[in-house]
This record gives sequence, C-alpha cells and structure tokens, in this order.
Amino acid sequence: MSEIDKNKELLFLPLGGSGEIGMNMNLYCYGGKWLMVDCGISFADTYLPGIDIIMPDTAFIESKRKNLVGIVITHAHEDHVGAIAYLWPKLRCPIYATAFTMTLLKSKLDEAGLLEQAQIIEVPLDGNVDIAPFGVDFVTLTHSIPEPSALKITTPAGVIFHTGDWKLDPDPLVGKAVCPDALKAIGDESILAMVCDSTNVFNKEPAGSERTVRDNMIQIVKGKKGRIIASSFSSNIARLETLAKVAVAAGRTLCLIGLSLKRNLAAAQNAGYLLDFPDFLDEEAAAKVSKDKIFYICTGCQGEARAALSRIVSGNAKYLKLSKGDTVIFSSKIIPGNDLQIARLHNSLVELGVEVITGKEAFIHVSGHPGQKELKDMYDWIRPEISVPVHGEIRHMTHHAKFAKSIGIKQAIVPHNGSMIRLSPQPAQIISEVYRGRFAVDGKFLIKDDDPAIVSRRRILYNGAIIVSVVLGHGSIFAAPPHVTALGVPDDKEGALEEYISKLVQDAVKKMPLSVRSDDKKIAERIRVLARKAAKGYTGKGTGAVTSVNITRI
Amino acid sequence: MSEIDKNKELLFLPLGGSGEIGMNMNLYCYGGKWLMVDCGISFADTYLPGIDIIMPDTAFIESKRKNLVGIVITHAHEDHVGAIAYLWPKLRCPIYATAFTMTLLKSKLDEAGLLEQAQIIEVPLDGNVDIAPFGVDFVTLTHSIPEPSALKITTPAGVIFHTGDWKLDPDPLVGKAVCPDALKAIGDESILAMVCDSTNVFNKEPAGSERTVRDNMIQIVKGKKGRIIASSFSSNIARLETLAKVAVAAGRTLCLIGLSLKRNLAAAQNAGYLLDFPDFLDEEAAAKVSKDKIFYICTGCQGEARAALSRIVSGNAKYLKLSKGDTVIFSSKIIPGNDLQIARLHNSLVELGVEVITGKEAFIHVSGHPGQKELKDMYDWIRPEISVPVHGEIRHMTHHAKFAKSIGIKQAIVPHNGSMIRLSPQPAQIISEVYRGRFAVDGKFLIKDDDPAIVSRRRILYNGAIIVSVVLGHGSIFAAPPHVTALGVPDDKEGALEEYISKLVQDAVKKMPLSVRSDDKKIAERIRVLARKAAKGYTGKGTGAVTSVNITRI
Repeated sequence: MSEIDKNKELLFLPLGGSGEIGMNMNLYCYGGKWLMVDCGISFADTYLPGIDIIMPDTAFIESKRKNLVGIVITHAHEDHVGAIAYLWPKLRCPIYATAFTMTLLKSKLDEAGLLEQAQIIEVPLDGNVDIAPFGVDFVTLTHSIPEPSALKITTPAGVIFHTGDWKLDPDPLVGKAVCPDALKAIGDESILAMVCDSTNVFNKEPAGSERTVRDNMIQIVKGKKGRIIASSFSSNIARLETLAKVAVAAGRTLCLIGLSLKRNLAAAQNAGYLLDFPDFLDEEAAAKVSKDKIFYICTGCQGEARAALSRIVSGNAKYLKLSKGDTVIFSSKIIPGNDLQIARLHNSLVELGVEVITGKEAFIHVSGHPGQKELKDMYDWIRPEISVPVHGEIRHMTHHAKFAKSIGIKQAIVPHNGSMIRLSPQPAQIISEVYRGRFAVDGKFLIKDDDPAIVSRRRILYNGAIIVSVVLGHGSIFAAPPHVTALGVPDDKEGALEEYISKLVQDAVKKMPLSVRSDDKKIAERIRVLARKAAKGYTGKGTGAVTSVNITRI
Repeated sequence: MSEIDKNKELLFLPLGGSGEIGMNMNLYCYGGKWLMVDCGISFADTYLPGIDIIMPDTAFIESKRKNLVGIVITHAHEDHVGAIAYLWPKLRCPIYATAFTMTLLKSKLDEAGLLEQAQIIEVPLDGNVDIAPFGVDFVTLTHSIPEPSALKITTPAGVIFHTGDWKLDPDPLVGKAVCPDALKAIGDESILAMVCDSTNVFNKEPAGSERTVRDNMIQIVKGKKGRIIASSFSSNIARLETLAKVAVAAGRTLCLIGLSLKRNLAAAQNAGYLLDFPDFLDEEAAAKVSKDKIFYICTGCQGEARAALSRIVSGNAKYLKLSKGDTVIFSSKIIPGNDLQIARLHNSLVELGVEVITGKEAFIHVSGHPGQKELKDMYDWIRPEISVPVHGEIRHMTHHAKFAKSIGIKQAIVPHNGSMIRLSPQPAQIISEVYRGRFAVDGKFLIKDDDPAIVSRRRILYNGAIIVSVVLGHGSIFAAPPHVTALGVPDDKEGALEEYISKLVQDAVKKMPLSVRSDDKKIAERIRVLARKAAKGYTGKGTGAVTSVNITRI
C-alpha cells in the first residue's frame, strides 16, 4: 500500500457524545483544517459531587485552534449547544446555526459577556455555507425542537451526512415533515459516511407523531373540573404549541410558569414559529380564574428542585396551591438518573390529592429520536458506504453498527470519544486515540473532572474529613495541645473522637525523635497517618477520613 | 358516642414501609400489648451521603419495650428482616419465623454476636403460635423467595389478615401454589382488616409464573456457543433453581460466584428446598471447562461495584475473563435508583463483545408482587371490612385504596409511617401521629439520619470545607499567620484561595477590638463568617464552604 497523503485524508473525531448520551462534540478534518459540529453539555451524575454541568475537555482542538475554521450547531438542545458559552473563549472561531438556534445561542453568549466578540453567522433553513475546505448544506429534519438540521459536509475526499438528532414525524405540527425525495437526492450524490443518532436504536417501533399526542391530550383534559397543570421540556416548541391548543380546545386560559419556557417561546416566535400562540396570564391573574377555566404550563417535569413544579408542590408558589381535583400531566420522558426525584414529586402531588398522568398511563409523549424503522428508511435514502453511530452509549452504538450492517451497509465503525477515525482513504479505521477528558463547572471555575476539589469531595462524602492543627514551640515541643476538627465523621458522643485523636497525637509526638519533630513534612505525615488510622478504627468506616495536618511553629 | 375503652382497642402502627418501598416495620396493639411484624432495612439514596443502610427509628416502641410481646418475620427479604441484627438489642423480645427465614436470620444474629441472647422460635409452614393476646396463624403464599407467610392475627377486637409480600404464582416451582379455598375459609371468619402489599398496584396484568421464565430461558440458552453468565437476586431461590435447570437442559456445568448466592442456597437446602441442586464447580475448576459447557451464576445484577459481575467485568476475577461470544443474562428487575450503574455495567459488557440479555429483550423475570388482577382475587377471598395498603410509596398506597374501594371494600385507609390507626372500634381512623424517624448505619454507629455527621457530609459534598487555624499569643495578637485548609473547594491556582483567606483573616483580626480578640467564641465566629463569605465570593459556589475555626492560645 502506498503512503497516505495526510493532506488528502478525511478524518472524524468525536470529543463528546460517543459513549454517552449528552455533551456532543464532533470534529471533521480535511487538509489540516478542522470543523466542529455541536458543542454541548451534559448533566453530571453522583460520581461528580457538587457538579451540575460537564462538557468535553477541548485540549486537543485548542492546540489546533488556528486551524479550526468554524463551529456548526445542528440544533438548540443543551447537549448540542450548551457548552459554547463556556468554551468559545478557548476556541474563538465563527459559529454557524439557523435562526431559532441562534436566538437561544445569542442569549447564552450575551449572559456570558461574549456576544460582542463572537462571530455568529445565521444560516437559512436548508441553506448552505462555505467553511473552506468544507461545504456545509443544512438539511432540516424533525426532532423535539424546531429547526433540527442534518449537515451534508462536502470535502474533496468525500461527502459526509451528519444527521444530528432526528426522527421522522409525519405530522410534526411545528416545521415541515421530512422530505424523502430530498434525502434520496442526497443519497444519489454518493455519500461516503453517515454519522448518525443512536439514542433509540433498541426501539422496534417508530417514535410516533406529535399529532397523536395532541389528539390524546385533548381527550384527557376534556371534562376535568379542577386545574390542569402540564409540564414538558421547555425547548419542545411543538409540545408547547400542543399544550396551548389543548387548553384552547378545553376552553381554558393559559398561564406559563418558568423562565426557560418564556425564553424558548420568545426564541420560537423570533424565528417565525408559534406566532398565533394565545395570550397567557401571569400567576397572580391566573389565580383569579376559576379552576375549570385555567391551564398552567410549567417547567420541572424532571423533578428539578428549583423548577416551577417542585416549587408549586412544596407550597412556595405564592399564587398557586394545588388541591384535590387538580390534574398534573407529565408530557415528557424520564431522563435516566432522574427516576427517584420524579417519583418524589409524583408522591407529593398524590399526597395533595392531585391526579398525576404520565406517559405510563396515556400516550402523551413522543420521543425525538429514530427507532429501527426510521433508521432503516434513512439508510435506504442516504445509502452511505460507512455507518458511524454516535449519540449513544456503547451499547446503543454497538447495536446501531450491527443494525446498519444487517440492512446492507458495507462498513460500520463505532467510535469512542477521542477515536481518530480516517474515513478516507478507505477502509475507515481508527488510526489513533487522542487526548479526551471532561470539564466540570464548579462555581466560577471550569475544572477537569479529576480536579482535587472534586476528588476530595467524593472522598469526604463517604468518609468525612479530619484536620489536625499542631502548634510547636522551642525544641519542637507542643506549645498547646493539638486541635482536631472532625467534619462528617460519625461519633458516639460529641467531641469524643476529636479528643481521642488529640491525645493519641500528643502521646505519639512526644515519642518521635527530634529529627522528625523538627521537620514539618515528616511530622505532618506521621500525624496524618496516625489520625487517619485512628479515625478508621474508631468509626469502622472504609478508608478512613480525608485527613489534613497543619503545623505552626512559634 | 360512648367513651372508647382503650383496653379493647385494636391499633395498627407502621414505623417503616408506609410511604416507601423498603424497611418494613409494622406494629399491632391490643390490650396495651404490642406485636411487631417485620423489621427491615432499606438502601439509602444520595440524600444520605456515605450511608448504605437505613432502617426505622424504633424510639416509639423502645419506650414500650416491656409490652412488646414478639417480632414476627413474614419472609427473609432484607426489607423485612434485615434490621433485626441492628435493632434487636433495643427490643429484646422473642422472634418468630419459618425455617428458611430463620436459617438466614440466625446467620445474621450470629455475625452480630446476638445468637445466644435472642429467643428465636421456629414456626412450621402454615403453623400457628400464641403470642398473647395475639393468636398468629402463618399462611404460606407465593413470592420471589421461599416461605412467604401472610399472617392471620386474631385478637378479641377482631381478626387481621396481614399479607406480607405476595403474588399468585400458579406454578411457583419452589413451594406450593396458593390455595384459594384456604383463603376463602379465612375470609369466612369475617376479617376486620387486610393489611396488604401495594408494590405493583399500577400493574393491570398479573405478575406471571416462574414456569414461563424457566421455559423461555431454556430456549434462549439453547445453541449458544460461548459462556453463559446469569445473574439474579441471591434470595430468589426459585430463580436459582430455574438457572440450574436451564444449565442442565443446555448440557452445561454450573459454577456459582458470590458469597450471598451460596449462603442462600445453603439456607434453602437447610429448609428442605433444592435438595437435588446439581453439583457446581469453583471458579478455578470452571475455567478449565470449555466455553460452551459452562454456566455461571453470579451476584451483581444491580451493578453493585463489589459484587461478582462488576468484579468480573472490570477484570478483577482471576479465573474468568469474558470475551466475544459470551452471553450475560440479567434475570431481574432494575431497582429504582440503580439504572445508571446497571447501564454502566451493560456498556462495559458490550464493550467486551458480550451479548447482554435483559427483561427488555425477553421475558426472563417475573415480579414477586401482586398486580390488580391478583389483588382483586385476594380481596374477593378475604373480604375484609377495611383495606389498609402498606408496602408502597404514597402513590402506590393511594391507588391501592382507590382500587380496593372500586371492587367493593367498605373502607380503605392510607397510613404514613407513624400513623396510629384504630381499626376497632370502627370506623377505622388515624387517631394520632407518633414519633417516627430513620436510623442510618454509619461505620460502627447507628445514628439518626439527621445526625451532624451526615448533614456535614451533605453540605461538604456540594460546597467543600474550609478550616482556619489561628494561634494567638500575648495581647491576643497572632503568634503566627493563620493557617487555612481548603478541602473540596475549587481554585484557579493551587493554594491561592487558602492564601487569600489567610490574608483577609489577618487584616480583619488586626482591626477587631481586644474584647473580641480575647474571646474565643466571638473571634472564631467573626472569622468563620468572614472566611465563608470570602470562599463564596471567590468560588461563586452556592452557600459557601462548610467553615470551621479553631483558636489556640499560647
């Protein structure tokens, strides 16, 4: 085989979203130039205590920043756009998106004080831009947010079809249905690789249509005598419209509660959607409407403590107290990891006498991702030589690859974050693994997810912490008894453990030779080991408390 | 209405398991005497950092310990028997259970050094005991563990039917099917109240039979060429037998991995079950058997880090490395809250090339709790005047109460933990709320769930901790600069925050009047507030670090 000309290679490199559902960040490289597709966040699980938001570590692409020609955002979900406001200062290249996405992105950049600096280019629906050496055609699909754009990325080494998040909704209500002929025409151009959403690859049934949800909800709400409160994801603009139509059909007036709902509605209207959205009341005015004539739409369907629904249930909403006869409709899925907090919210509602309706009781939610039937259609239309599953955990992507091969795709390759895949020249293969990691937002700081602050908290949350303060005077002899502070360590009597360790340390130090006592590092380490072991023996807890010793000499 | 004779009242009081699925503890009272039914644990969620096991706080019944005539255990699941070894020293009364339950209970008491002290009375299957003033008849039902016993509790004020955990399995494989005639005969005795399992009240379909699981699994395993590894709950003895039969049907030799599996098998055999269980190999011997002739049964179906399956996947099992072509079967449900860790385990398996089969892909698990169809049968047989749903969250119990009334039960009453319900004289009603709480196992200590150790850890896990050590000399002037230890607090540069706070404290203390400086409490509180506020401003994190100040005077 002859030497490969590096400048004619077409590379694909995911830094986020391959091996997880969330924080999507994909890179393409041709002729030494890089194009980023999506720049999203994810929500941290309990492995990162005290952290809410994480995102890909961009060290690799920062090192090639001068060759990063642009960032294209496929749609406005947080897992595709949410990291821009954090990471743009490290990347500083033009950002491309359609109107709805751009409206939401601009408000994020504005909040971060970056709006003036960032170069943002709004692309029309189904428009195209030249981000040399990449030609990028936006192809509107359907999803659970307006303007989800697949990208046809044209390079001299081949054409990629990058789906972004999508489904086939025959009647999406907001936006147009997907046009098979347009996709077949793209397929006719001979697509090298399709980089595709794997989220629902285990679903044998198609996602279903927003129309069905709307029709079902109208039936459910009909004849209810109490208040109706509905909650969904704020960015699901079609669902927001659905809820408004359901309210109107039931002869009820709307009230919207929650900042992100109003922000998303405004972004939608700014981009030309939901222009006939009915007037809605504020909470105070809504409280004056009779129960059977009001329809609330709230944030908080995932049981988030600070969102509207949790605030209402806990009695912290001034103008809205729920009671027997009211109905709360959860028109959304349960995000993995949120099951316990959603169950708590359901229980609190039931305790108030409220009827709770979820996707379990009625078909009131459709997914935004393609099941096998829709995937097959898309592969049949696009006919790529290579399938590259992304947007999934390993099990989703692996199953997707098997599925693609089973329906006749020649090659399927499953990436990890950090896998550098050469798509052309073929055959596609992983040619290297580059550095990949995660950043965590910790207060004002963007830190690595293995930062000592996080590691300490993880250890303390199990073991607690012990700090020994030692004051030594002339001859390295105690100037006062050592002070022990135990935080989060169980005790049988308040202060007993601290006193016990203080005495142990006093006795032990007295027996140490001067060469140890006079060396801050040595004595601190001896005391640390002693105190930690003592705490472990005293409490019987795992690895012993996180122990820190400080030596003051006077 | 005439005065009620307190001595003729029949009371029901749950201290655990009403409003949650787990840590069941129910009390009955007649004539001033108390009977406890079940004494279980639950697993803590992330709200109690560093805690695995919780159980009901027994303060109320401890205060009446002299009148506690006995503890009856319905079956050997941890949420019914697991707290005995922790709480018996506070209760010290006789314990009643059937043989299988007693075997497992004895090993727990033995481990806790209580076996010699505790008075334990083994009751035959379907036997009865007089625990005056309570007559207790054991009625064997079916569940996902051997010998699940409902209790018919007879008192002069009425008869209770306490179901414990149950389902109707027409072909349970281990133990006998439920006998409707026996239950109808109990119903003929005029039952005052049925206290009943609510877990699956939302299920319209019956649980299904272990026989179906067995038949399906034999089909699935047939023709597989690699290793088979199956995992379920260790206490599910019928499933353990099922897995052994499946192995035999596939011509494979068994290997059991995991202590609790072997312990449960031994308990079952001790009680007369699974006496023809096939011989099984240890891991070392199993490694010598060809892949298509070996069948492993492992602990760890919930993704528990320390159980066999996780150890195997992470490469820590000396004799078993999984690879492409092997199949892992999860023959169990996902316990709420475990979804993320189970998904991680699935992904790791898929990454190794292993096929993963769960209840989603095939009918390989049946629940142990009654759906609506089974509940209706039981209510039709027992015909209680009062339904008391227990063993559920509020939503389950509330739905159960509605369901019971919809099928003709005159009264249904939903308890909370701590609700003192008078069942007789009727009508049943909650007459008071008694103290209820939770104990947590923290190392060697059994502490309240709002103990400062837990509260501190919860705050630190979000905010981190800061400890300021101050050494003051003559005139309450610094003898050395204050030492600041920050643990779990994010920083932009190592040590920068600590230095910043140290300087702030120095400057502030210099400006404090002598009256403050010379008073340990006053100066410490001033410094604490200052340091905490500084950390909050510096890091931008929520409520600021947990801050502690110690003053040493020399």
